[in-house]
Amino acid sequence: LLFLSGTLPVVNGKLAIAGRLGANLSVKEGQEVARIASLNALAAAKQHLGSLDRLKKLVKLTVLIATTEQFADHAAVADGASDLFVQIFGRETGHVRLVYGVQSLPIGAPVILGTVFEIEVLPYSISKPQL
Amino acid sequence: LLFLSGTLPVVNGKLAIAGRLGANLSVKEGQEVARIASLNALAAAKQHLGSLDRLKKLVKLTVLIATTEQFADHAAVADGASDLFVQIFGRETGHVRLVYGVQSLPIGAPVILGTVFEIEVLPYSISKPQL
Amino acid sequence: LLFLSGTLPVVNGKLAIAGRLGANLSVKEGQEVARIASLNALAAAKQHLGSLDRLKKLVKLTVLIATTEQFADHAAVADGASDLFVQIFGRETGHVRLVYGVQSLPIGAPVILGTVFEIEVLPYSISKPQL
Repeated sequence: LLFLSGTLPVVNGKLAIAGRLGANLSVKEGQEVARIASLNALAAAKQHLGSLDRLKKLVKLTVLIATTEQFADHAAVADGASDLFVQIFGRETGHVRLVYGVQSLPIGAPVILGTVFEIEVLPYSISKPQL
Repeated sequence: LLFLSGTLPVVNGKLAIAGRLGANLSVKEGQEVARIASLNALAAAKQHLGSLDRLKKLVKLTVLIATTEQFADHAAVADGASDLFVQIFGRETGHVRLVYGVQSLPIGAPVILGTVFEIEVLPYSISKPQL
Repeated sequence: LLFLSGTLPVVNGKLAIAGRLGANLSVKEGQEVARIASLNALAAAKQHLGSLDRLKKLVKLTVLIATTEQFADHAAVADGASDLFVQIFGRETGHVRLVYGVQSLPIGAPVILGTVFEIEVLPYSISKPQL
């Protein structure tokens, strides 16, 4: 299993969109930032493994969303991430998901993703790069 | 290990109770919804494994509670879930627990549970159903 | 892997500092409580394993911080925990990290830590103590 650090919706080192679901961000904007954070998770996995070839599937996806107390449409926002992973790994592999609304996220991000991937074990042992 | 998706306190496809701890829900009501979400976790495990026979124990329980900022009695609410699992798996097995209060949960739920179970490995390899 | 329950910044059974980042607690105070919660995670690992000798490294660190909605300096607070683990396990081992701001924490704590450690497997099988 490959555990990644939380990935933010950052593009070129800058937040793609700042804000809070239920306040100044729409569900559609939330889906877009979730998609961007997913791409960053794949980029982080690639950086760690050297390529994406060894990435077998997404095992677990945690979607944390900065929301108001009243917001209740978490599933739709999280689908912005899930749909991308389903496109990549196929619908039949599936993934476990936990989604919730938080008070605040680093650098004011509206979404952060936690991901656990299953990776292909190399046929011989090599010294592993730092996680 | 069997990772499950977040389970909500849903009965017949509907939230058992909506609301927020520290506002319109009592600790006792919180315990009851935590218990219902636990039953749904067991139901999801059963659906995945075919039966509960292969479920050896609960390894990790995460209890997310929709609360006010002032609420501090998270442990009592989470016991509504822990007590059920202790009844089923016995006190000696124990489980690791992380409990916290969040801003909002999907469909306005007051509680969501994350669970990781240890399962009995089958003596021969079969093609696994989708997680 | 050794999963621990959430560890609080408790000293002698009492919260070291109560409060909320962005409100009545400074980032520096947040770092200090994160450091105390880290020491408690190590103490819990020691209690579980008998000694710290079998602790190989920290695999994953989750830092939950009670914050205002406006707070955005989560990384600095979490460094109070990460820096301690880097001192102990060395910079080259690294660890995966997920940090976010929550509505409320048990007993009014400003910080709670979730930790997953890699432990040395014993050369012979023994009956394991309770997790």
